[in-house]
Amino acid sequence: MEAWKTSISTYDRDRIILRGYRVEDLMHRGNFGDVAFLLLRGRMPSPAESRVWNAVLIASSDHGPTPPSTMAARVIASGNRKAAEAAVAGGLLAIGDAHGGAGEEAMRMLQEGMKLISHQGISVGEAGKQIVQRYRIKGRRIPGVGHRVHERDPRTVTLWAMAREEGIAELPITLMQAIADALSVQLGRTLPVNVDGALAAVLLGLEFPPEVGKLAFILGRCAGIAAHLLEELTREAPMRIHVPFTYDGPHPE
Amino acid sequence: MEAWKTSISTYDRDRIILRGYRVEDLMHRGNFGDVAFLLLRGRMPSPAESRVWNAVLIASSDHGPTPPSTMAARVIASGNRKAAEAAVAGGLLAIGDAHGGAGEEAMRMLQEGMKLISHQGISVGEAGKQIVQRYRIKGRRIPGVGHRVHERDPRTVTLWAMAREEGIAELPITLMQAIADALSVQLGRTLPVNVDGALAAVLLGLEFPPEVGKLAFILGRCAGIAAHLLEELTREAPMRIHVPFTYDGPHPE
Amino acid sequence: MEAWKTSISTYDRDRIILRGYRVEDLMHRGNFGDVAFLLLRGRMPSPAESRVWNAVLIASSDHGPTPPSTMAARVIASGNRKAAEAAVAGGLLAIGDAHGGAGEEAMRMLQEGMKLISHQGISVGEAGKQIVQRYRIKGRRIPGVGHRVHERDPRTVTLWAMAREEGIAELPITLMQAIADALSVQLGRTLPVNVDGALAAVLLGLEFPPEVGKLAFILGRCAGIAAHLLEELTREAPMRIHVPFTYDGPHPE
Amino acid sequence: MEAWKTSISTYDRDRIILRGYRVEDLMHRGNFGDVAFLLLRGRMPSPAESRVWNAVLIASSDHGPTPPSTMAARVIASGNRKAAEAAVAGGLLAIGDAHGGAGEEAMRMLQEGMKLISHQGISVGEAGKQIVQRYRIKGRRIPGVGHRVHERDPRTVTLWAMAREEGIAELPITLMQAIADALSVQLGRTLPVNVDGALAAVLLGLEFPPEVGKLAFILGRCAGIAAHLLEELTREAPMRIHVPFTYDGPHPE
Repeated sequence: MEAWKTSISTYDRDRIILRGYRVEDLMHRGNFGDVAFLLLRGRMPSPAESRVWNAVLIASSDHGPTPPSTMAARVIASGNRKAAEAAVAGGLLAIGDAHGGAGEEAMRMLQEGMKLISHQGISVGEAGKQIVQRYRIKGRRIPGVGHRVHERDPRTVTLWAMAREEGIAELPITLMQAIADALSVQLGRTLPVNVDGALAAVLLGLEFPPEVGKLAFILGRCAGIAAHLLEELTREAPMRIHVPFTYDGPHPE
Repeated sequence: MEAWKTSISTYDRDRIILRGYRVEDLMHRGNFGDVAFLLLRGRMPSPAESRVWNAVLIASSDHGPTPPSTMAARVIASGNRKAAEAAVAGGLLAIGDAHGGAGEEAMRMLQEGMKLISHQGISVGEAGKQIVQRYRIKGRRIPGVGHRVHERDPRTVTLWAMAREEGIAELPITLMQAIADALSVQLGRTLPVNVDGALAAVLLGLEFPPEVGKLAFILGRCAGIAAHLLEELTREAPMRIHVPFTYDGPHPE
Repeated sequence: MEAWKTSISTYDRDRIILRGYRVEDLMHRGNFGDVAFLLLRGRMPSPAESRVWNAVLIASSDHGPTPPSTMAARVIASGNRKAAEAAVAGGLLAIGDAHGGAGEEAMRMLQEGMKLISHQGISVGEAGKQIVQRYRIKGRRIPGVGHRVHERDPRTVTLWAMAREEGIAELPITLMQAIADALSVQLGRTLPVNVDGALAAVLLGLEFPPEVGKLAFILGRCAGIAAHLLEELTREAPMRIHVPFTYDGPHPE
Repeated sequence: MEAWKTSISTYDRDRIILRGYRVEDLMHRGNFGDVAFLLLRGRMPSPAESRVWNAVLIASSDHGPTPPSTMAARVIASGNRKAAEAAVAGGLLAIGDAHGGAGEEAMRMLQEGMKLISHQGISVGEAGKQIVQRYRIKGRRIPGVGHRVHERDPRTVTLWAMAREEGIAELPITLMQAIADALSVQLGRTLPVNVDGALAAVLLGLEFPPEVGKLAFILGRCAGIAAHLLEELTREAPMRIHVPFTYDGPHPE
């Protein structure tokens, strides 16, 4: 078998090296979020980057027991109480196109919009309008806009204020807002940028590839899922979840 | 369906509350590890606790591409390149009795030893010997001791030095070391406490239940798996992994 | 890397060999259950074995939308609609100690009972009593007995009638029933052998190791999960599942 | 919580009903593959359909230890030996765009081609050429064609011969072959229809929706994965898999 190649980490009898740092030195850093940045990005974050990146993970960390990821983890734990890895993994598997996956899609959309701006020399507002038009022609949903609960997502407001303060992601944030505005005009009602859209803009400003739009959400939500799983195991009985259902299929003769 | 109960988090139109904090306020804290502590433990860590807990997560975060969890994630990504959640989840599923699961088992063992100490009034060294004897009589492997690569695990040394400095987990650390010593005497060769044993002692000192022995490892390793997955997707071709094998079953006539 | 060894399957440019058969020849057999038997057991089933083994898989295949495995798959699909593998896998992850895992445990229990019979020369009824006593002394739940819905599990009745007709698993079936009877006497109410206990006896009669107690249930239920997932994707909207919950944690000041 | 709706299955104290059949009656059918058809399709297969559908599942069931799904399951089992559900689920998670997912994509492609034929009145050969052209203009890979090992896939030959004998899927088979021929002409080398393309044509002939292209492969491969997992657990030591790797990242100063 051909040797695998990695630039992330290695070890020998005495040492574990992550991205050029000894793990002991990283342990003294005191901030797990920073080490996740290092592992994904290949270098340590600046203090400004650390602040914003940790805020992305924290914003993603939990949202009650009702999102499909958290609900799935609790349902799995109600049947399988000895294998915590199964419930956490099963929870993460619910993160996809309809839940938590819009960050990655929004990063690709923002990349497309930023190309329009730099190649065609158009304004950010104009780019927002063109993106909305392009998506609607193809019948594609605009990712990162709208929320079934929040009219104004507190995570977006805070994350973007923080990023602006630190001078991070100014263009992608403005573009993401322009897209939401253009869509709101088209639909005739004000749609907020949701947490997926908010972190998409910020992660692009931190020069992450689009895949990190989903991976950051996964890592953040892993903490919340773990907490709900622990609560399920310590506070609830096995097989406690009963969902009401009606059967509308055929009956035996 | 009966309403679920949770003391972890809730939301309404304008707010998301995690363990009594607004998510915006947590985002300003700048330390994702601390919020994971809050979610799992129900309260914020002290500065000393934050330092040690973040070190636990960082110590767990990565160890090259060869552990089963990381290897599985890369293998999965080589067949399934569009669903990052599948590769991360699949990686976490390799965390079990033989890899990353010993932390939880070691916490249960340490709880048993600490009961011996408080109920029988024996010394820590004596408790270590009794635990080793009990496990060996039942034919059970002592968790948290020995490593296939490291003779002296740098993560253990650093984590325990840090915990001792902060006055955290003194008794469980001494007990874990006593167990390793008693086992080394029995086997006639020096066995190090590995990272699972090291974090087990520390997490017990932080008053976490044994389940967190595995969950902390899962959360930490989630960061490393995400990084290896990203490297696989951006640097390697699909279906690139070929394992040599021999077939020793029957052949058609 | 050392070559892996397998006696299950191999291939070259022109052929795929499974357990000594060309895959083309197996495709003509017309019974997927039989090929699963071949793969797991290393030889083709006799007609009697085929009948009973297929009945095991069919008995395990589905039980409405409410078991944790099926429910989890539908919850996952409500968030992640493009990755069917995620929802099927997530569903299977709910198969554990409290749901679908009792077959494996019951096989181990029956092995213990059969050793008592052959080593101590006691009767099956006596072995049943001793097993119940041993489990109760250790505070362990007797696997394979009782059901939250069925007072008399139709799958058990049918599977055991079929096995008896074919002369398969007579001793393990009698022993499993003796255990249920002894437990019923102890508890003062009649407890049925459930599907896990029923298939445990039959699989032992087919000379499978205990691991197949869980694997057969997993393979059977995979069909039902796939069907529910397909129904979820084609008949329901994304994010349609809302679970009511109450929050009993702290609030911000 | 609103009641869920299902037309697949229901139960009461005495009965379990799957698609209008009592589970006991299905258990007597003796063919698990047929019950999987019933669950997915809503009605029992005819004898001809049963033959072809079972052949699809058998063709998908195993292909040695090297596909990412099987390899991942074995890697996971080497770290996690007590939770068979984790290894099976993790194996299935490798079924995606580059491995086992092409069946679903090929079904969508064939649907597009069949629309061309019926709406534009063109020949099957012409439709094959147009499909290849459409895909190449968009830079999309043609699914279901080519194999890294087999120049002529024995599963395709057998499956299609069987389907033709039974009068099933004639048009989709001819179209799938026409697409492979058109692509071979374009690329100047003969490419075989692989098992994904073969089952795509057949499943369309059986009137399944495209999602079943992946689900049938998942169900079939579940049997092979279970067998490899069992072999790993019974024949190999924990943590036995060592992959060689080189580190090309930075080193500490």
